[in-house]
Amino acid sequence: MGTSVFLEDLDAFAYREALASGEAIVLIPVGSLEQHGPHLPLGTDTILSTHFAQAVATRLGALVAQPIAYGYKSQQKSGGGNHLCGTTSLDGASLIGVARNLVKSFLNQGVRHVVFVNGHFENYQFLYEGIDLALEELGIGPGAKPSVLLLSYWDFVTPDTLAQVYPGGFPGWEIEHGGVLETSLMLYLEPGRVAMDRVVDGPAAVLPRFDRLPVVPDRTPDTGCLSSAAGSSAAKGELLHGQVVDDLVMDLANELVREPAGVPA
Amino acid sequence: MGTSVFLEDLDAFAYREALASGEAIVLIPVGSLEQHGPHLPLGTDTILSTHFAQAVATRLGALVAQPIAYGYKSQQKSGGGNHLCGTTSLDGASLIGVARNLVKSFLNQGVRHVVFVNGHFENYQFLYEGIDLALEELGIGPGAKPSVLLLSYWDFVTPDTLAQVYPGGFPGWEIEHGGVLETSLMLYLEPGRVAMDRVVDGPAAVLPRFDRLPVVPDRTPDTGCLSSAAGSSAAKGELLHGQVVDDLVMDLANELVREPAGVPA
Amino acid sequence: MGTSVFLEDLDAFAYREALASGEAIVLIPVGSLEQHGPHLPLGTDTILSTHFAQAVATRLGALVAQPIAYGYKSQQKSGGGNHLCGTTSLDGASLIGVARNLVKSFLNQGVRHVVFVNGHFENYQFLYEGIDLALEELGIGPGAKPSVLLLSYWDFVTPDTLAQVYPGGFPGWEIEHGGVLETSLMLYLEPGRVAMDRVVDGPAAVLPRFDRLPVVPDRTPDTGCLSSAAGSSAAKGELLHGQVVDDLVMDLANELVREPAGVPA
Amino acid sequence: MGTSVFLEDLDAFAYREALASGEAIVLIPVGSLEQHGPHLPLGTDTILSTHFAQAVATRLGALVAQPIAYGYKSQQKSGGGNHLCGTTSLDGASLIGVARNLVKSFLNQGVRHVVFVNGHFENYQFLYEGIDLALEELGIGPGAKPSVLLLSYWDFVTPDTLAQVYPGGFPGWEIEHGGVLETSLMLYLEPGRVAMDRVVDGPAAVLPRFDRLPVVPDRTPDTGCLSSAAGSSAAKGELLHGQVVDDLVMDLANELVREPAGVPA
Amino acid sequence: MGTSVFLEDLDAFAYREALASGEAIVLIPVGSLEQHGPHLPLGTDTILSTHFAQAVATRLGALVAQPIAYGYKSQQKSGGGNHLCGTTSLDGASLIGVARNLVKSFLNQGVRHVVFVNGHFENYQFLYEGIDLALEELGIGPGAKPSVLLLSYWDFVTPDTLAQVYPGGFPGWEIEHGGVLETSLMLYLEPGRVAMDRVVDGPAAVLPRFDRLPVVPDRTPDTGCLSSAAGSSAAKGELLHGQVVDDLVMDLANELVREPAGVPA
Amino acid sequence: MGTSVFLEDLDAFAYREALASGEAIVLIPVGSLEQHGPHLPLGTDTILSTHFAQAVATRLGALVAQPIAYGYKSQQKSGGGNHLCGTTSLDGASLIGVARNLVKSFLNQGVRHVVFVNGHFENYQFLYEGIDLALEELGIGPGAKPSVLLLSYWDFVTPDTLAQVYPGGFPGWEIEHGGVLETSLMLYLEPGRVAMDRVVDGPAAVLPRFDRLPVVPDRTPDTGCLSSAAGSSAAKGELLHGQVVDDLVMDLANELVREPAGVPA
Repeated sequence: MGTSVFLEDLDAFAYREALASGEAIVLIPVGSLEQHGPHLPLGTDTILSTHFAQAVATRLGALVAQPIAYGYKSQQKSGGGNHLCGTTSLDGASLIGVARNLVKSFLNQGVRHVVFVNGHFENYQFLYEGIDLALEELGIGPGAKPSVLLLSYWDFVTPDTLAQVYPGGFPGWEIEHGGVLETSLMLYLEPGRVAMDRVVDGPAAVLPRFDRLPVVPDRTPDTGCLSSAAGSSAAKGELLHGQVVDDLVMDLANELVREPAGVPA
Repeated sequence: MGTSVFLEDLDAFAYREALASGEAIVLIPVGSLEQHGPHLPLGTDTILSTHFAQAVATRLGALVAQPIAYGYKSQQKSGGGNHLCGTTSLDGASLIGVARNLVKSFLNQGVRHVVFVNGHFENYQFLYEGIDLALEELGIGPGAKPSVLLLSYWDFVTPDTLAQVYPGGFPGWEIEHGGVLETSLMLYLEPGRVAMDRVVDGPAAVLPRFDRLPVVPDRTPDTGCLSSAAGSSAAKGELLHGQVVDDLVMDLANELVREPAGVPA
Repeated sequence: MGTSVFLEDLDAFAYREALASGEAIVLIPVGSLEQHGPHLPLGTDTILSTHFAQAVATRLGALVAQPIAYGYKSQQKSGGGNHLCGTTSLDGASLIGVARNLVKSFLNQGVRHVVFVNGHFENYQFLYEGIDLALEELGIGPGAKPSVLLLSYWDFVTPDTLAQVYPGGFPGWEIEHGGVLETSLMLYLEPGRVAMDRVVDGPAAVLPRFDRLPVVPDRTPDTGCLSSAAGSSAAKGELLHGQVVDDLVMDLANELVREPAGVPA
Repeated sequence: MGTSVFLEDLDAFAYREALASGEAIVLIPVGSLEQHGPHLPLGTDTILSTHFAQAVATRLGALVAQPIAYGYKSQQKSGGGNHLCGTTSLDGASLIGVARNLVKSFLNQGVRHVVFVNGHFENYQFLYEGIDLALEELGIGPGAKPSVLLLSYWDFVTPDTLAQVYPGGFPGWEIEHGGVLETSLMLYLEPGRVAMDRVVDGPAAVLPRFDRLPVVPDRTPDTGCLSSAAGSSAAKGELLHGQVVDDLVMDLANELVREPAGVPA
Repeated sequence: MGTSVFLEDLDAFAYREALASGEAIVLIPVGSLEQHGPHLPLGTDTILSTHFAQAVATRLGALVAQPIAYGYKSQQKSGGGNHLCGTTSLDGASLIGVARNLVKSFLNQGVRHVVFVNGHFENYQFLYEGIDLALEELGIGPGAKPSVLLLSYWDFVTPDTLAQVYPGGFPGWEIEHGGVLETSLMLYLEPGRVAMDRVVDGPAAVLPRFDRLPVVPDRTPDTGCLSSAAGSSAAKGELLHGQVVDDLVMDLANELVREPAGVPA
Repeated sequence: MGTSVFLEDLDAFAYREALASGEAIVLIPVGSLEQHGPHLPLGTDTILSTHFAQAVATRLGALVAQPIAYGYKSQQKSGGGNHLCGTTSLDGASLIGVARNLVKSFLNQGVRHVVFVNGHFENYQFLYEGIDLALEELGIGPGAKPSVLLLSYWDFVTPDTLAQVYPGGFPGWEIEHGGVLETSLMLYLEPGRVAMDRVVDGPAAVLPRFDRLPVVPDRTPDTGCLSSAAGSSAAKGELLHGQVVDDLVMDLANELVREPAGVPA
């Protein structure tokens, strides 16, 4: 069990050895339990963020913590809406609380850098707040050695990759819910958990420029997906995964291992 | 005082008459008190969101509530960072609490629609959470008549307008902080509050694809602006203001006055 | 824009110069959006506390932050009750949170003294709690240089002034809601926002010596005012304003500028 | 044990019989554990509010719940300050929470009216908020039968009584901390718990018209009392107790038993 | 009043003398207001924990603070359930808040050790959390001198005592609610508050191995007691009280006065 | 993917079919990320509770939600203490919040029964509180059809099994942390994740009858285990797992499927 990157698998003594250098990096995948249409499993966001974290950790010599497997409420413009059966969510205070506790707990143990790898659009600001509150409580301000990074994996997809994955033009990240990106990644990483025969093709959802609450349910397609997964393929998934992992590794290595000018050493 | 669109100016009896139809719309501007470089005032976000709310309310026959004048913590990638002197912020729980209370209070008074008009990037998700919690407490779900809308005014800028305002290409909303959009709007709407002679020209900030906390202060330019305001003009501001107000009025009228199919009437 | 006392108008660099002495004072007006009868606008409390803050800041060389424009729930014995349409309130936790955040934010920026200038009776204890929690978090105890002051402007009205304003005897601060004090001040400071022809004369409300919840609505007069504004005049407003501003300036100068014995220097 | 007015003494079955009429009234004394000078015990506020509740309950046929024995932080202008050793306090959220829980618990059991009998100045607004939140959660608004009353016992002292107790003029409620009122009441009700030989005579404290935080400790007299207890006597205590209990009984009977017009029956 | 162990009875100056050694111990009884069948009063848990605290304090030279007289919600498997009339409870957040505030307040005053003496099964974990949060806020970690102890008095009953009190076999602590232990202790300590003629004999309740919410009311016996009090006696109460007090005194003296190896001195 | 019992694996449409009967049961495993000595992985509690949930769900036709993989702070008497490196915990409010949100979310989707299967001693009361708050918010009281069950798997070990697993006598559940029970179960269920060669034999820890905070670190054995795992075996694990699963299935079937008298049908 000593060779796993997953904290779940390590015993406490092996873990302490991993922290002994004072430079340990722990990645925390964050996802959701959320409807992703008829062709993808409810755990898609958690599954994907865990895969990215695992791949990055393997190459960086980092560790992967248990994922935050429930995310903030699905919003209609990015996830179809929290009213949809199968979508099981946390409110803001709970997600803030979980992130805040994990940051405090890991940094107090001697972890040098904590990295949240987000896979569910709606989580971002609540994770940010949890991190910020934790650092304030710990008295960690500019110039301190420990740090926390927060990222969503799709922010590392390059324009080149996008052009190859969406030859007809990229519809925008917000409606990439159960669409080509997630489906292709799942086809490459977890083919047994995708049912391409259940994909319903059709035009992308057209949603207002505002959020309306309570939601108007008719605005979400019956599938629960905001754009079609019809053009997905394992090859696209491989491309996406490879490029994003490369970029994540490059950026995290530059930032946390090589430590650029201006960054505490 | 009876003709003002601002609640602050109305007496309670005039206000009650305005609600008597059962169709009243109240817009709440949301901004921040945040550094906006050497050429724009700290109140820029609140000033602009209030202007948009006022213009829309005048044309729609709606009312404008007192603004939420303090916003969520400035993030380095969208506002330079919360460590910058002049930036005075609320934490997530407080902003959620204010939004939640206002929604409950206005809907309980008989307001039919509440519209948050946001002018500070970082606020969005916390306003969303406040709205959602309020509706849950009030027992307002799909099919209920009252509604709350949440929007950021820049989401209503069209590609055509963008192309005219940024002839050299649009740098992205996140780094539009103290840049051409805000400065042009201020030059058109509040010229006495802009000091174009203090604008510092230069390339846009290049920030990582992740958020790092605590911030690395060197990554924010000395001006506190993430992109240059050098190309700003009152004419661009007039164009932006006119187009955005037109689109806001059109969308809100369609949604709240004419009430499309699928929307509770 | 450099000469305004309002933070909203200052750019970040002008603001930082104002803080450079290490002795800066920031005043925060606190009010409400609350029914004030048929003759005064909903924003009366915020308007008046902002006027007092502005006048004091001008004479002391201090700054005025954006007001807290929404206050704690109106209580029947001091504001007619929170059930009255037009009264738009925050709960205790939200008001505590806003005050706590503002104190932390301003003191962290290097402001030496923060002064809350309150204009809504019900706010006081929640502001106090917010201040106290902020100082505890900041580790600021007796002997520290920074301080926060909390005051309600009516506590600075002297017996002499009271005798002139209420020749028939003073009915008590609690029922001074939409009465002679507030109306006279508005007539002097904002005459265009008062409608004296809509004043309804009559005896002061007689309310129990206890608070009852839920309220018995019949106990609040139809006007929503607890005492009559019939004897109001701009001259009384000028007297009140002048005397209170004089006393505020004297007390704050003694306390914060000249620093009496026993006070940290 | 069946004849006690104290819930602590009743068994559950006797208590249920007491509620069977549907008209039961439960009084909750609220006090503090707070320094009261060298001559009064730390429990003074709780002891006195419990005595008032007991006397009123005996005459009204009501019940007395366990007191809330810890109060909100002592403020310098009304209790000498929270920095004084012996003063053991709750923050706002905890006191709000306790009040909110007790209201919900008692009303859910079928108690018709809950009455908070307050004996510590600083508690009032936090009790109010706890009550208001509980009623909102329970869905109890105007017109509902159950009610909650909140009162401080000193608000029932009449001008006549005041004139007799303070022949030299009344110094004001705020600085009546360890002074003639509390000491006289203790001399009458709990003579064994007063040490008149330890009273330190002297002028009343003169405190600013604002609250300053952190406190300037020198502003509180060494005794911790804000006014002298030198003129106290058991006879004054008897007068105060008798008159206040009479008025409390009269007001509560009128309000809760006879139920005036406009009040739900 | 100087000789009481109860803080309620001490004046502030006597209390400060008691703290002057730097070694003071304050015990806080924690109970509930909870149905205890037809033969025991609602205050049983608070009464008993206060008796234990008083007896221990007398022998250790410690002090006893006001009890926390309301406890966490009664659970069906240990107290019959929170739905039973007479049971008046706090939620988790409120109890955590009270414990957290008391720890902070007492340690800030210079108390060396705080000991919570619990008498209500359901309270334990919430007290623990309140203590832990307080110590974190105070920055008190391993090696610091001040400490907080948390205990339930029944954990100090020895097997020998148990065998004597329950000659037919001990049914388990969880269903010891209104049973032989509590009733015997009350018969010994407060005989006037027990009605043995109202005891209903019968077999102990058999409850599931899980908690079910909402409760199935039929699973709680009509008496509200989970085991019969029929075998109770004052002699058993004296035995229990004597042995538990002896053990508490021994353990606390060893831990807090003599301070074993490994414990900060 | 349609045949998995894990929600993570189901697509939303398959999940909705599973809920269509109105009788669906969702089990939520709850564990911790906590040091378990040198021979067991940090994820032991989550791994075991997930195994129990999976086995029960398979036999009952129920579903298993994503586990709550982080638990409440490890306490010294049951888990060695929260100061031990590797132990990564949530505070009470966060765990309450997560449980509350999951209950609300699943019941709102139409799940009939939610069952928390706990594998970490310290979690229990916070899960209970989260469940209770959720049901209060949902208005679900006695007599309602939906229910939530809370259980710890070790409460289903029978005396017979105990006698076989601990032939030398059972040391008590509290110190069964990294001991024979957990190790045997892991040897049976996850042999590749146990390192029996790293087991350190020795006597069980002897801990005080109180909790002391801050912890005295010397009281926890260096291994972090409170009792020895030396007598563990896969055969004991198989016995434990088989008997507990049988009993869980029997009890849950009786309670939730056959629905005994007094239970809502």
